[in-house]
Parts: sequence; C-alpha cells; structure tokens
Amino acid sequence: MSALTAAAIQTAPIFGDVSGNVARALARVPADCRLAVLPELCTTGYQFASRDEAIALAEPVPAGPACQAFRDFAARRDTTLVAGLAELARDADGRERVFNSAALFRPDGTWAVYRKVHLFLDEKDLFAPGDRGFPVFPACGTTVGLMICFDWLFPEAARTLALAGATLLCHPANLVLPHCPEAMITRCLENRVFAVTANRVGVEHRAREELRFIGLSQIVSPRGERLACCDGVAEGAAVALIDPDATDKQITPRNDVLADRRPQAYRL
Amino acid sequence: MSALTAAAIQTAPIFGDVSGNVARALARVPADCRLAVLPELCTTGYQFASRDEAIALAEPVPAGPACQAFRDFAARRDTTLVAGLAELARDADGRERVFNSAALFRPDGTWAVYRKVHLFLDEKDLFAPGDRGFPVFPACGTTVGLMICFDWLFPEAARTLALAGATLLCHPANLVLPHCPEAMITRCLENRVFAVTANRVGVEHRAREELRFIGLSQIVSPRGERLACCDGVAEGAAVALIDPDATDKQITPRNDVLADRRPQAYRL
Repeated sequence: MSALTAAAIQTAPIFGDVSGNVARALARVPADCRLAVLPELCTTGYQFASRDEAIALAEPVPAGPACQAFRDFAARRDTTLVAGLAELARDADGRERVFNSAALFRPDGTWAVYRKVHLFLDEKDLFAPGDRGFPVFPACGTTVGLMICFDWLFPEAARTLALAGATLLCHPANLVLPHCPEAMITRCLENRVFAVTANRVGVEHRAREELRFIGLSQIVSPRGERLACCDGVAEGAAVALIDPDATDKQITPRNDVLADRRPQAYRL
Repeated sequence: MSALTAAAIQTAPIFGDVSGNVARALARVPADCRLAVLPELCTTGYQFASRDEAIALAEPVPAGPACQAFRDFAARRDTTLVAGLAELARDADGRERVFNSAALFRPDGTWAVYRKVHLFLDEKDLFAPGDRGFPVFPACGTTVGLMICFDWLFPEAARTLALAGATLLCHPANLVLPHCPEAMITRCLENRVFAVTANRVGVEHRAREELRFIGLSQIVSPRGERLACCDGVAEGAAVALIDPDATDKQITPRNDVLADRRPQAYRL
C-alpha cells in the first residue's frame, strides 16, 4: 500500500437530527482523503433519555438511512468511512437490542461493524455490551481496528487489535474526561500503530447531567507523534498523510513491541 | 494504612563506584520518608562493557555489600527502600547469571526481589530475562508491585501487578527514550494505582554509544496527577504524601477499571 490521507472529522451533532447530522458531518470530509473517521454516535447525538429513545433513533447496519448515506458517500468519493452510530439489532429470540457501534464502509459497498465493548457510565442502561470482541478488518489497503471512546482506558482493546494485525486504529469518540488524547499517544507507542481519534464538541443537557465534550480530535503516529489535531471547541477536521504499512514494530533495533511481550510473565 | 511520605531519588551514579554510589544515593533520602525508590542499576551504573564486567560488579541479594547497606539503612531509618542493582545468581547447574533486578528492603530486615522481564537493547547481551514474572509484595502497609524502566512500554506489566493487588508501583529506571513520564500517567489511570518512578540523570559513554539519561523522576496518583517531579539534569528527590489504600478502582461511579475488563473480548 502507498500512503493515504486520513481525516478525523470533529462535529457537534444536534440531538435527534439524524439526516442533518449526517449531511453536516459528510460536508466536512476533505475532498482528497481516502479514510474519514466520524465521532461516536455522530448520527443521533449522545445523551439518550431512555433505552426506548435509543431504540427509536437506532438503525440496522447497513440497511438504515444513515448507513445508506455513508455507503453512498464512500462509493461516490472513493473513501473509506468509519462512523459511530446506535445500531439496532435483534437477538436470537427476536428482542430488540441497541449497540453503541462503529461501522466501516468501503468504496466497493462492503461494510463491517464493531460493537463497543467497554460501556461508560449510563451507557450501561442504554446499550448492550459488544458481543463480538475486537475484530480487525481489511480496509484502505491495510488492516484496520475499530475501538470506541472509553475503550481507550483499557489497554487490552488496542493491544488485542494490534496483536490481530491492525496497523491503524479508527477511534470514534464522545470524550468528556480529559485524559484520552495523551493516553492514545501511549497506545500508539506501545503497539506501534496509527490512531485516528474523531471526537465531538459541544454540550448536551437532556435527561441527565450536562456533558461537555472535549474535542481535540487527532491523528497519532506509531512513534507517538501527534500528526494533526483539532481544538477543543470548534467543528473541523484533523488531516494527515499516513503510511501504515511503512512502519514496523521495532521501537529500537533490538526491541519489537509485540515480539518482546512475555505472556508467561503476565500470569497471575 | 494511613498516608505515607514517598520519595523518588534521582541520582547520577559513577560507573563502578558501588560504595560511593550507594552512600550518595542514601544521603538523598529525606529524613521523614517511609518509602524511597532509587534508580535502576543505581549501585553500579548502566553501561557494562561486557557480560563479564556485569558479573564482576553484580552481587547476590541480599548478601551483597550494597544490599547490606540498604538493609541497614531501612532498619535504622524505619524506611522501606527499593533499589535497582545487578543481581548475581546461580542457576540449577551452578552457572552464573546476572539479572537487572529491583530489591525491596523493609525496616524489619526482610526483603523481596523483582527481576526485569523486558530487557532493553543491549541489555539482552548482559542480563538473563526475569524468570519470576511480576510478583507483588506486602510493604509499607499496602501491596507493592515492582517494575523496571522499559517495563513501562508493556501495558501487561503494570496491569499484571494491579490485577495481583498492587496499589503502588515502585519503578526504578534508567530512561533514555522521552516517552515514559507521560506513559506512566496512562499506567496509573488505567490501573488506578500510584507510581513512583526513580530515574537517573547524567551521561555514560563506555563500550557503546553515548547514553543521556532523562531524569524527570516523578510520583503519579491513581487519577493521573503528577504529585511531584524532578528536573531533567540534577540529582534530587521527588517527594509526596500518598495514601494507596484510600483510593479505589472507580474511574466513574459506574466504571471500575479492573472489574469492567472483558477478558472474553480480548481473545484473538
């Protein structure tokens, strides 16, 4: 693969305005980029008042209306698109479940989905926890791993993706705690991967306490360099030229961050 | 347990001057501290020219002369002391082995040792890799975990210690890469532990390339706050009052950083 231009799209969704949120987010994707990552729950907004409200605003992947708009855009613009959205699914007994998901849409019309594993605070009342672990997907000529927001806190998330071969982490987020932008530098260093964190900005104050989202969307290299970033308040895009397959796992000529692991020593 | 005063002691050892290095390091331990952490290989210096030189300067734990000085000091000053040193041991066949170790000495004369698991660069030519995993030890009224320098890069190190019950990581170091001070903030956040990183300063240029050690010894809280730190060039001490047993694992009222782990999702 050759280098590609990647973008973290930073938006401020209006709660419940799915078609408007999708249109405004896609309008911010730079013309020349081959990978665009949109925030967590970028179609609906974040603070659902109830599980019923989440079900009402969620959609099936890839048949839902936002997904269709993303698929069309990916094909029309020859861009791989990753977007966070509320996914409506049915379990084996036909009951409705809602996942906090990230869907990936390729230019050829194919798609993949990750369901958030580590739920934050009151998300535990709204969403089912991800039931498919941390799969990786071929996309834009490399291997992509998806993680969502609070997954940043658990080193096992990025580690599992890197061990499965991901060279590039796409990370939709709705961050309210301040630590993630720095922690993602650690995640990139310890796994020698790129990470594109697309966070939202703005404030939501609906059913629960006021939430202020911290922005600071960024693209970080396997050497822990912040290649591009947004500010903490405005919508925008962080854009960088990256080459995931030009990097290796050698943090020094004699230290491979994955091969030097010693799983025997990690047993309790 | 009640709160205790902890110190990260930052020194610039003179290569090979074991008795002088020990005396100068101990002279920097504040009178009132109950835990002092000294740098990696603080008795000998870092850059051994050969494995034979490492063997010649290494000592058995706890019978060696530096260990005896540390034990005496711990008892006399009622302080728990953690120090990095080259440990001489024999394997089952009587062959000499050298470990890059951290020894812990309690005021009551008892001791414990950790042998560095993740060896950095040319350490692979000098030392045997740690053969005892990441054990934790009761000390200063809590549960202490030991890790050494480059172990910072592997999230499994601090994670294993935290899962085994460590509330306080003692981390002797000889850092040359720039990333560890920030990464240790991530380690403390993701495990909700304290960390005392004692690094050295100064330059060594012996057998191999010149090494410039970055200092910046620090004490970090479970909330990722840098409670105390040294500069990048001078010997000194970073001192803070900490209470490891007053903290819990709740990064939010509904999120426990250990209980929220989902090991099933981390399978490849």
